Amino acid sequence: MAEISASAVKSLREKTGAGMVECKNALIEANGNEEVAIEILRKRGLASVKKKEGRIAAEGIVGSYIHMGGKVGVLVEVNCETDFVARSEDFQNFVKDIAMHICAAEPRFVSKDEVPQDLLDKEREIAREQALSDEKNKNKPAQVIDKIVEGRLSKFYSEVCLLEQPFIKDQSLTVRDLLNSMIAKMGENIKIRRFVRFKMGEGLDKKKEDFASEVAAALKQ
Amino acid sequence: MAEISASAVKSLREKTGAGMVECKNALIEANGNEEVAIEILRKRGLASVKKKEGRIAAEGIVGSYIHMGGKVGVLVEVNCETDFVARSEDFQNFVKDIAMHICAAEPRFVSKDEVPQDLLDKEREIAREQALSDEKNKNKPAQVIDKIVEGRLSKFYSEVCLLEQPFIKDQSLTVRDLLNSMIAKMGENIKIRRFVRFKMGEGLDKKKEDFASEVAAALKQ
Repeated sequence: MAEISASAVKSLREKTGAGMVECKNALIEANGNEEVAIEILRKRGLASVKKKEGRIAAEGIVGSYIHMGGKVGVLVEVNCETDFVARSEDFQNFVKDIAMHICAAEPRFVSKDEVPQDLLDKEREIAREQALSDEKNKNKPAQVIDKIVEGRLSKFYSEVCLLEQPFIKDQSLTVRDLLNSMIAKMGENIKIRRFVRFKMGEGLDKKKEDFASEVAAALKQ
Repeated sequence: MAEISASAVKSLREKTGAGMVECKNALIEANGNEEVAIEILRKRGLASVKKKEGRIAAEGIVGSYIHMGGKVGVLVEVNCETDFVARSEDFQNFVKDIAMHICAAEPRFVSKDEVPQDLLDKEREIAREQALSDEKNKNKPAQVIDKIVEGRLSKFYSEVCLLEQPFIKDQSLTVRDLLNSMIAKMGENIKIRRFVRFKMGEGLDKKKEDFASEVAAALKQ
């Protein structure tokens, strides 16, 4: 059995947020290999995440993020199971990160389920037409075309759905990965319920600056 | 002509936000009576507000207010004409006040125009039925009933429309009055464009605390 140092446990703990004993056990199981230990913890975490997903999350907080003195603003509600977790610094920081992410990444929906059917149908149709009109796909069997279309759709999801987007502060994770690691860390079901993003002036007609005619008008007076 | 003291001008200036010369002139016109001077300034302000209402307001800020550590959150966009005004402390405080007001007063729409026709029709029908079924309205002419119904509707507006609500920090003003005084003060058209209010957990099923059956289940084990 590999000798597990306290500093190895500490390092793994910082990286995964798992408990001391869990970290030590994972390192023992992994023969001291940190990468493998992380994998073990992640699998266990995900298993416990799955178990927690059905639980009612009706506590939580509403958080906001205002960018550049008010040019963009985000409001988001994240739910958890207890007020105790809602008040914790970890949870509050998580909500802040999510609000900031929404500000930067402009998702339109929380999850795939929220994408309206007609929008999805339209995207699928466009993807299919593009695939069929591409020279290099000529003579390819229908299943291959289907695969290409599904690939395009999953790209679409990762652009418009918050949970499928790469997290702005760490592009190796999706927001769903981040959420799952929070669920594992806090030991409660956590749900990003809803958000709204206002960009100042979007859709408004801007005043047209027409100095030439302003000057001309002034000269006539 | 009444003698106008500097302290009277200062006091009027603080109350109305109008310029020094304007305040002095209004006091002279009002023979030194502050109440009358305020009335004069308000009428002038409103006249200039009317002129500004048509102007394009495409600058501004998005502001937020989070109540009780995240139990309620508000996001609001307020537009003005120039970035200069948008950055001013007065404007930023105004936006903060509006967000706080929305949090407390729970409006559902910005203005009357936004109330959907079917909701309005339903409210009118309820008001009419209530008026007709009231004993003391028996034998009253149709016009009187109409007046009662209109009275009920304007009460409805003042409950659900932000601009018609009494301002939480000064119930003698409506939010529209406050907005108009800001327009007069800043010399620009200002519009409260849109808002959203999230109450944590609204519409979610809460976990049911059923200690009796929990204890019973524990005893069986």
